[in-house]
Amino acid sequence: MQDFIFKYEMEVRDYECDFQGVVNNSVYQNYLEHTRHEYIKTIGLDAVELSNNGINLMVTRVEIDYKSSLRSGDKFVSVLKMKRISPLRFGFVQNIYRLPDEKLVIKALVTGTSVNERGRPELPEELIKVWGLD
Amino acid sequence: MQDFIFKYEMEVRDYECDFQGVVNNSVYQNYLEHTRHEYIKTIGLDAVELSNNGINLMVTRVEIDYKSSLRSGDKFVSVLKMKRISPLRFGFVQNIYRLPDEKLVIKALVTGTSVNERGRPELPEELIKVWGLD
Amino acid sequence: MQDFIFKYEMEVRDYECDFQGVVNNSVYQNYLEHTRHEYIKTIGLDAVELSNNGINLMVTRVEIDYKSSLRSGDKFVSVLKMKRISPLRFGFVQNIYRLPDEKLVIKALVTGTSVNERGRPELPEELIKVWGLD
Amino acid sequence: MQDFIFKYEMEVRDYECDFQGVVNNSVYQNYLEHTRHEYIKTIGLDAVELSNNGINLMVTRVEIDYKSSLRSGDKFVSVLKMKRISPLRFGFVQNIYRLPDEKLVIKALVTGTSVNERGRPELPEELIKVWGLD
Repeated sequence: MQDFIFKYEMEVRDYECDFQGVVNNSVYQNYLEHTRHEYIKTIGLDAVELSNNGINLMVTRVEIDYKSSLRSGDKFVSVLKMKRISPLRFGFVQNIYRLPDEKLVIKALVTGTSVNERGRPELPEELIKVWGLD
Repeated sequence: MQDFIFKYEMEVRDYECDFQGVVNNSVYQNYLEHTRHEYIKTIGLDAVELSNNGINLMVTRVEIDYKSSLRSGDKFVSVLKMKRISPLRFGFVQNIYRLPDEKLVIKALVTGTSVNERGRPELPEELIKVWGLD
Repeated sequence: MQDFIFKYEMEVRDYECDFQGVVNNSVYQNYLEHTRHEYIKTIGLDAVELSNNGINLMVTRVEIDYKSSLRSGDKFVSVLKMKRISPLRFGFVQNIYRLPDEKLVIKALVTGTSVNERGRPELPEELIKVWGLD
Repeated sequence: MQDFIFKYEMEVRDYECDFQGVVNNSVYQNYLEHTRHEYIKTIGLDAVELSNNGINLMVTRVEIDYKSSLRSGDKFVSVLKMKRISPLRFGFVQNIYRLPDEKLVIKALVTGTSVNERGRPELPEELIKVWGLD
């Protein structure tokens, strides 16, 4: 877990669990999205504000491996690091570990880009700087 | 806010906001449910465990007044107190206030009961004790 | 069921069911909202379009009685009629019945208003006409 | 679209759209799951019933390419075909197309397995037959 640059702790809420008593698969994408948005706030960006200013952060691809399940009341940590994919695409390497035993729950690679009002790729300065994409 | 017996802080997540940029109405019910479940944990009960043992906590009625909206990134506190409704029905008086200005967002009264495997009302001991329903 | 002016059939999806195997309480609000939005389309309005034009339909209060539960795969019909509440507030009387036995699942009264960009109540013409609020 | 064995039509609901006015990424996983569950019903299986009998269908990996967005009110068709991955793992090849123009929205490969009460892989007969996994 050491080489991740951002760590965010959360806890499963009962309404996120499905008829099998475990967190529903789609909910993990909410956890992953929330983690990314919290991370980009730490570099001075806000997904909703960007959207209001005509810049939409967009996910173009996700790969998620479900390694084990979270259940009601479980605490977990969602971690993230960046990976350069192409000049206009950035990758979020995202894992989720159950706490306190740090059992791996989710291994994900989320590829994103940033699009302006005309639908053209346009990366905010802050992203370019922090992700070294120039 | 003084006479509430339980207070729980949360923060809006972007995926909870709808096309109007505010938290979707149905999401507040998730917040309220999560608050109730966290509260009953403090009196030694667990909604999911109870359900596995054949006791289902059931909501029979909700009344929610939407007084103002929460937006992306807003912090808020969800507070709760109990109100006796009938020998077999208990009421949760639940408010949500935005932080830090404590603006009232939600005023709710949630009526619940507890039902055993045969569908008959059966209140767990802990509920009767803490809610003084005997 | 005869005096309702709008009827909309749906089916429970598995991901809408919670750890108790029944549709989660908050999901019914999604069903009710979707029914209202489908209804107002039939009178020539679109909630998302209105919102883009600065008019937000807002719910100010809901009262929901949960009479019985829907389970995975259940079909149901969501019905609606209007009720005048005040010159600037309109009420949706909304019931949900399981199909095919028409068992009552939900009885709800949803109070709404319509607000312009300055936050002032402003009802679209179409609403006034159809709901006889003038 | 011809070689898909199952096609299921749906329509975007407003509450599924996020602050960017488009269907939230995680909602597509709900659409994909619902499509799989509807498909397996056509071969005589029911995900919730199986779960009650101790057999859990589990997703072990998803790959989703987001090719374009769905918006409020859009109709779409969710299509599916099977792909053998290994003796104990089956793949669902799933695409989503907007209607009526059949613009590609989602391209996904969802890998699943089926696990019994002791956590061991156990495929129901019906799956083996229809998917030719024996």
